[in-house]
Amino acid sequence: MTTGPRDVLRIDLGERSYPILIGSGLLAEAQCVSTHVAARDVLVVTNETVGPLYLGMLEASLQGKRVRSIALPDGEQHKTLAVLGRVFDALVEARMNRDACIVALGGGVVGDMAGFAAASYQRGIDFVQAPTTLLAQVDSAVGGKTGVNHPGGKNLIGAFHQPRAVLSDLATLRTLPPRELRAGLAEVVKYGLIDDLAFLDWLEQHVDALLALDVAALTHAVRRSCEIKARIVAADEREHGQRALLNLGHTFGHAIETAAGYGEWLHGEAVAMGMLLAADLSQRLGWIGRADVERVRELLRRAGLPVAAPPIGASRALGLMGMDKKVLAGRIRLVLLRRLGAGEVSGDCPADALQATLRAHFGEAA
Amino acid sequence: MTTGPRDVLRIDLGERSYPILIGSGLLAEAQCVSTHVAARDVLVVTNETVGPLYLGMLEASLQGKRVRSIALPDGEQHKTLAVLGRVFDALVEARMNRDACIVALGGGVVGDMAGFAAASYQRGIDFVQAPTTLLAQVDSAVGGKTGVNHPGGKNLIGAFHQPRAVLSDLATLRTLPPRELRAGLAEVVKYGLIDDLAFLDWLEQHVDALLALDVAALTHAVRRSCEIKARIVAADEREHGQRALLNLGHTFGHAIETAAGYGEWLHGEAVAMGMLLAADLSQRLGWIGRADVERVRELLRRAGLPVAAPPIGASRALGLMGMDKKVLAGRIRLVLLRRLGAGEVSGDCPADALQATLRAHFGEAA
Repeated sequence: MTTGPRDVLRIDLGERSYPILIGSGLLAEAQCVSTHVAARDVLVVTNETVGPLYLGMLEASLQGKRVRSIALPDGEQHKTLAVLGRVFDALVEARMNRDACIVALGGGVVGDMAGFAAASYQRGIDFVQAPTTLLAQVDSAVGGKTGVNHPGGKNLIGAFHQPRAVLSDLATLRTLPPRELRAGLAEVVKYGLIDDLAFLDWLEQHVDALLALDVAALTHAVRRSCEIKARIVAADEREHGQRALLNLGHTFGHAIETAAGYGEWLHGEAVAMGMLLAADLSQRLGWIGRADVERVRELLRRAGLPVAAPPIGASRALGLMGMDKKVLAGRIRLVLLRRLGAGEVSGDCPADALQATLRAHFGEAA
Repeated sequence: MTTGPRDVLRIDLGERSYPILIGSGLLAEAQCVSTHVAARDVLVVTNETVGPLYLGMLEASLQGKRVRSIALPDGEQHKTLAVLGRVFDALVEARMNRDACIVALGGGVVGDMAGFAAASYQRGIDFVQAPTTLLAQVDSAVGGKTGVNHPGGKNLIGAFHQPRAVLSDLATLRTLPPRELRAGLAEVVKYGLIDDLAFLDWLEQHVDALLALDVAALTHAVRRSCEIKARIVAADEREHGQRALLNLGHTFGHAIETAAGYGEWLHGEAVAMGMLLAADLSQRLGWIGRADVERVRELLRRAGLPVAAPPIGASRALGLMGMDKKVLAGRIRLVLLRRLGAGEVSGDCPADALQATLRAHFGEAA
């Protein structure tokens, strides 16, 4: 077995510290996998799309352990308490005890559900993330958030539960649909925008290499993204203040996703467009220049991400952002860009500037 | 509104510290209730037995807040993920946010489910315990364990989540079936046996007062029980070592509950009989004297608890305790009594002594 280049990032959370391994072919390296999945009893949680591609390889790398697996249906609509119950059933049926470990093999949905199952089974067992999408590798596998959706809202039921290790195998991105790769890149660009101008510069130079799945470029992008997210989360583990920066583009994006119907726009695509809107608004407030907005637009365009909003009208967009008249009359909180590489939560963004941004991009209300 | 005598015990867990209030009539005291249920939005989780008795009083004490309630079906068989889902539905339907508080009004089942809902809703909101059974007041409301059962085992799914406060209203014990009061007393006796000879002496003097629901006696018994449990749990919050002492009588008791069919023996009744078996075995090991065993038997008898085991046979009892031949050949771990007032986990109890105890109480195998 050849061993590719590998990077290790240590997330420092005291006794819950864990390593993020980033490299191509990690899941095929039995020694690496066995070291980080230390338990003898293992339940692999995957889905019906990823399982057929990588479960066999992972099981081979876990040889000698007692390994069971469960493949959940693929898709956000299956991230429910009822489907979570099937993971508990599998744990009980396999007589997994407190020393067992869950491995999440898949994207964000699998990671969130497997993590919540691990948080709750016998009030907490170990779990290891093996994210197979770029979005999961740079976002959902870091930060300790786990959970399921409720018909009344996303991620309403869950727990904070840190993994023992994250194994980000870049080779799995070869089977990821290109559109999902691009959507993952939107979150990578986000880290540059909110925290690191040098990383933004680097992204401008390497966006083509990333789209071509160049391993060295992916390694750096995943590592730097995880570093930035981990630093922000560690400073603010229970989600106040700084963590809000991670929502750059998300309030605008939420309006787009909702208007288009979930699934029409991928989350990352809506976030990309939302970041462009945040940049536009930041420029109207005089925080960044027009040239900065153009840099954001050009980088997103080169990453194959949308830079034109759907013509849903400013009024409807406002409503979908949760901004009723009462909110507009009060203090509007939005994540904006103080400058490129420095996100900031605006405590009282003027309503007229927000409305100008929305009109410019969504058009007047129908 | 008259204010009865009230005791306050502070549980010291750093930033998760909370008070346990013990008194008669607490739930009718609006100021007390409103102080400890600080949130404006409140969901009361109760059951169909306790709700009709005390929900109106509690709601009156929460006047001025936005209060919703849900009554779950009564009984351990309803402590499931599916019924938990109804609590989440109620939270979502009432648009409860992260600042909301859940109040658990009922016994251990209600407390465990409400606590797990609070642990998981939006990854953790506040909750307050208002236990209405003696068992819940002295046991399940302290320690932070929350959760639901799975068909494969009790409490297999859950979380550690500390309440903001425990309001133990002794007046609610007046509507508790006497048999359940006695079952709760078994756990009170347990605290004396494992940790505090002076408390055991006190119980011998006050068992009649407790059965007569004397408020001063109940206040002391609940307080001392909570103090002992909290000290043991705090020393060992994530359940290693010392916390095992709280299982005195439980392994034997589990065999009795299972053999009789769940529901035939109340949990506390089985624990009482199990403690007598543990005392018997401790005496066979020379740890305590025959007179000590008689003291245990007499106290349990006066508390109206069983002191005769069902004639299921020693072999069956062994099997139900999870002791197969392999376990008997190795090291047998059981919670025993080094002396009265001092429980100890025996690392290698001799198999012949254990079998002698079982034969003496369960009879020879059929």
